[in-house]
Amino acid sequence: MASDCLARVAIVLSRTSHPGNIGAAARAMKTMGLTDLRLVAPRHFPDPDATAMAAGAADLLANARVFDTLEGALRDVALSVGFSARARDRSHPAEALRAIVPELLAAASDATVALVFGNETSGLSNEELSRCQRLAAIPANPQYPSLNLAAAVQIACYEIATAAEVFAVVPGGAGSAATGEDLEGLFAHLEASARETGFLDPEKPGRFIEMMRRLFARSGLEREEVKVLRGFLRARDAKRR
Amino acid sequence: MASDCLARVAIVLSRTSHPGNIGAAARAMKTMGLTDLRLVAPRHFPDPDATAMAAGAADLLANARVFDTLEGALRDVALSVGFSARARDRSHPAEALRAIVPELLAAASDATVALVFGNETSGLSNEELSRCQRLAAIPANPQYPSLNLAAAVQIACYEIATAAEVFAVVPGGAGSAATGEDLEGLFAHLEASARETGFLDPEKPGRFIEMMRRLFARSGLEREEVKVLRGFLRARDAKRR
Repeated sequence: MASDCLARVAIVLSRTSHPGNIGAAARAMKTMGLTDLRLVAPRHFPDPDATAMAAGAADLLANARVFDTLEGALRDVALSVGFSARARDRSHPAEALRAIVPELLAAASDATVALVFGNETSGLSNEELSRCQRLAAIPANPQYPSLNLAAAVQIACYEIATAAEVFAVVPGGAGSAATGEDLEGLFAHLEASARETGFLDPEKPGRFIEMMRRLFARSGLEREEVKVLRGFLRARDAKRR
Repeated sequence: MASDCLARVAIVLSRTSHPGNIGAAARAMKTMGLTDLRLVAPRHFPDPDATAMAAGAADLLANARVFDTLEGALRDVALSVGFSARARDRSHPAEALRAIVPELLAAASDATVALVFGNETSGLSNEELSRCQRLAAIPANPQYPSLNLAAAVQIACYEIATAAEVFAVVPGGAGSAATGEDLEGLFAHLEASARETGFLDPEKPGRFIEMMRRLFARSGLEREEVKVLRGFLRARDAKRR
């Protein structure tokens, strides 16, 4: 999936009360590669709180477009998805966010799509909901479903970027894997050491090495780790003599 | 998956600088049904900023346990997963969050597991990372991977609750679906109305109704909607006469 489809996913925040939430939402968007922020009748914008909470995403605030009405914000949008936490507010049935993402990404391949979030306290109004073609909800604890606005935006952007498979985790940290020769050298060394100390049961010489093979197969071993383990064994051998 | 496995997933915040982030993390946890919050050497706690940001999750703050060291916080933990945004900081390879969740939930079926998050600026130290059995990362924009601490906690808790399938979206909004009889009544009415106005091509009488059947099959129809559509047709008929 091309990352440029993320450029066609707009986040629309309608009638946001707290400018800090606009900034935090911009930050959440940028961490997931989204850039198109649209604001409908924000109570305060621009605002120093928005800028402070945006941290390194001030460029999204600078490029954000402000509209008087939701209709205006959706004029070029082919598929709009409204977020609604409360089933009783819904004009049409809501789907779980994850279920709706494939359709959203398919539409974003050649058209602009929008995720629409309402006011922090009251959510989307009935009129706003009826302007959205789909409704989505984030499955949450029914005893306390109160996600912060920017937290809801973060989850939505994360689901979209994850489904679009545009960002990968660089594993890092791993050295090169031990070879068969490294491993056999280690097991031979362990066995010799165990025989020499009398730890190995001469009746069942295979059991100890079988267990070590299983254990190190589970953990995986890097070349560097084999080297350190054999150094540790050599030092014990030398000390004993 | 039983929701009580969520009670065995602890969130550990180590050396958090800003108490507001502790409160926001508690709120994020509670929205996803997690309750076990552990703090390692927080700079300020308890703190009014933590309480304000926790909103309705003050109970999690009240029950949070504070430890001097990460070792102390993990004493009863069978599987610990450290979160690390930067590949270069990692002592061992990191996996994507979503890939590690099944193992985490399997372990949580009969033991305590922990997700460990480091300081806002510096992340987990090398010593902290080496105390975690697994490392995970949230795939993010390499140009700006700076998720807010509470946003990272929100995504992690969301992934766990979603994989555990403990919360469902109540679709809401939908009335009862129209029956076959309702639909045939509507199509007959549309056809009669179209014939009466001369809109229907007498050579191809089927095409219009075929298109209407396809269109309404895509949209789905509720009984109430059929009633309103037929009322609209009746009013046109009456007006015309």
